[in-house]
Amino acid sequence: MYKIVLIRHGESVWNKENKFTGWSDVDLSERGNDEALKAGEELKNAGFAFDLAYTSVLKRAIKTLLNILDVMELLWIPVIKSWKLNERHYGALQGLNKSEMAVKYGEDQVKIWRRSYSVSPIALNENDKRYPGKELKYSNLFKNEIPLVESLKNTVERVVPFWEGEIVPQIKANKKIIVVAHGNSLRALIKYLDSIDENAVVNLNIPTARPLVYKLDKNLKPIKNYYLGDSSAVKKAMEKVESQGKIKK
Amino acid sequence: MYKIVLIRHGESVWNKENKFTGWSDVDLSERGNDEALKAGEELKNAGFAFDLAYTSVLKRAIKTLLNILDVMELLWIPVIKSWKLNERHYGALQGLNKSEMAVKYGEDQVKIWRRSYSVSPIALNENDKRYPGKELKYSNLFKNEIPLVESLKNTVERVVPFWEGEIVPQIKANKKIIVVAHGNSLRALIKYLDSIDENAVVNLNIPTARPLVYKLDKNLKPIKNYYLGDSSAVKKAMEKVESQGKIKK
Repeated sequence: MYKIVLIRHGESVWNKENKFTGWSDVDLSERGNDEALKAGEELKNAGFAFDLAYTSVLKRAIKTLLNILDVMELLWIPVIKSWKLNERHYGALQGLNKSEMAVKYGEDQVKIWRRSYSVSPIALNENDKRYPGKELKYSNLFKNEIPLVESLKNTVERVVPFWEGEIVPQIKANKKIIVVAHGNSLRALIKYLDSIDENAVVNLNIPTARPLVYKLDKNLKPIKNYYLGDSSAVKKAMEKVESQGKIKK
Repeated sequence: MYKIVLIRHGESVWNKENKFTGWSDVDLSERGNDEALKAGEELKNAGFAFDLAYTSVLKRAIKTLLNILDVMELLWIPVIKSWKLNERHYGALQGLNKSEMAVKYGEDQVKIWRRSYSVSPIALNENDKRYPGKELKYSNLFKNEIPLVESLKNTVERVVPFWEGEIVPQIKANKKIIVVAHGNSLRALIKYLDSIDENAVVNLNIPTARPLVYKLDKNLKPIKNYYLGDSSAVKKAMEKVESQGKIKK
């Protein structure tokens, strides 16, 4: 009935350096830039076209989208950018190295911080230079909307209303949509779409810059989903995401 | 009272090849890309910030805007893209060389086509592959909105209502705005803002990628306008635009 493409941004500079990123607005790495161009080629070659795009207000997602649209000759379509699609806010972990944190706190603790549903890492305080309330781009948010840290549950609580309130009406209006977002904002959305429970979502990993196609029925329930492209490469990319929180050997 | 920045896209591949471009969706040249980045630096260094951007649906303008916003760390602001800000449609001249046309038809005729107010070049017909009605991006236009060719007067007739209906209310809401458009859509706007008559507008030339700042009073009448950056370089860039329709020596 309906079809939508979800995609995580390409590798960022901090993905490459294996740091917790969250709302830190780091750029794509050169590889991430190329991954985005490649995703655009894959979508074009598979005959996709879009007339509306959604992304976060973080440049690694925005640039991934723009690279895709450029390759597809679709830079002219409307692009809606919302903080509701931002990565999960990682609180005081933002900017710290995932492997170093695994050495310091243990792999199990890091896996809990990265993948558990309702546990939040350590919160920022409002004086921290990483507090989003200091940034112009969040100046239109209500104070109680600005996170100091988020669990995946908190992320679900902002992503799902945005999906239901903003994206679903456009899908129902037959718009062909691409959503470029982040590892955890997409996990939040997929948990909801596929009714994944809080335990199983721990093992859900989203590879960078791989177009994930959802076919939805008339009630927006998923009929089928699949990654475009070579399935063994997709599997490898997922395993890579999973291994990031492990101690470096 | 209010301030707005207008800017023509950076050099395109066809500016470089001295071809009539119009609605042909050609890319920026490498130089045009650099010009846009430089304009972003100039705006940033002069302390500008924007919270809303307008551009056309042509990639040379969109990419100029995106380069500027990237340098200014403003990729997250809303961007409104409209065909109403497109370059003047050059009809059957699109894709042809300006100097060659000057040899064939005379410099005076080419100057009339390029700069007169109400004279249109030769129109396309609807079977021409350059007819905008064949393009997806114009599929939401009414048939009588799709041009076969435009005079500057025709361009004024679409740009000014967009200015009055879309941009002015946002200026009055105190939005800080940048408009990235084209040589002739900006000439159309400036003719209106500065009440330039039909004869004088012939000599109005807009250099590529030079931020043009307008200060406007509370009724949106211009108090002052100026180009950012080195004034002799701006003058040289304007003369270069003017000389494009001359026979190559």
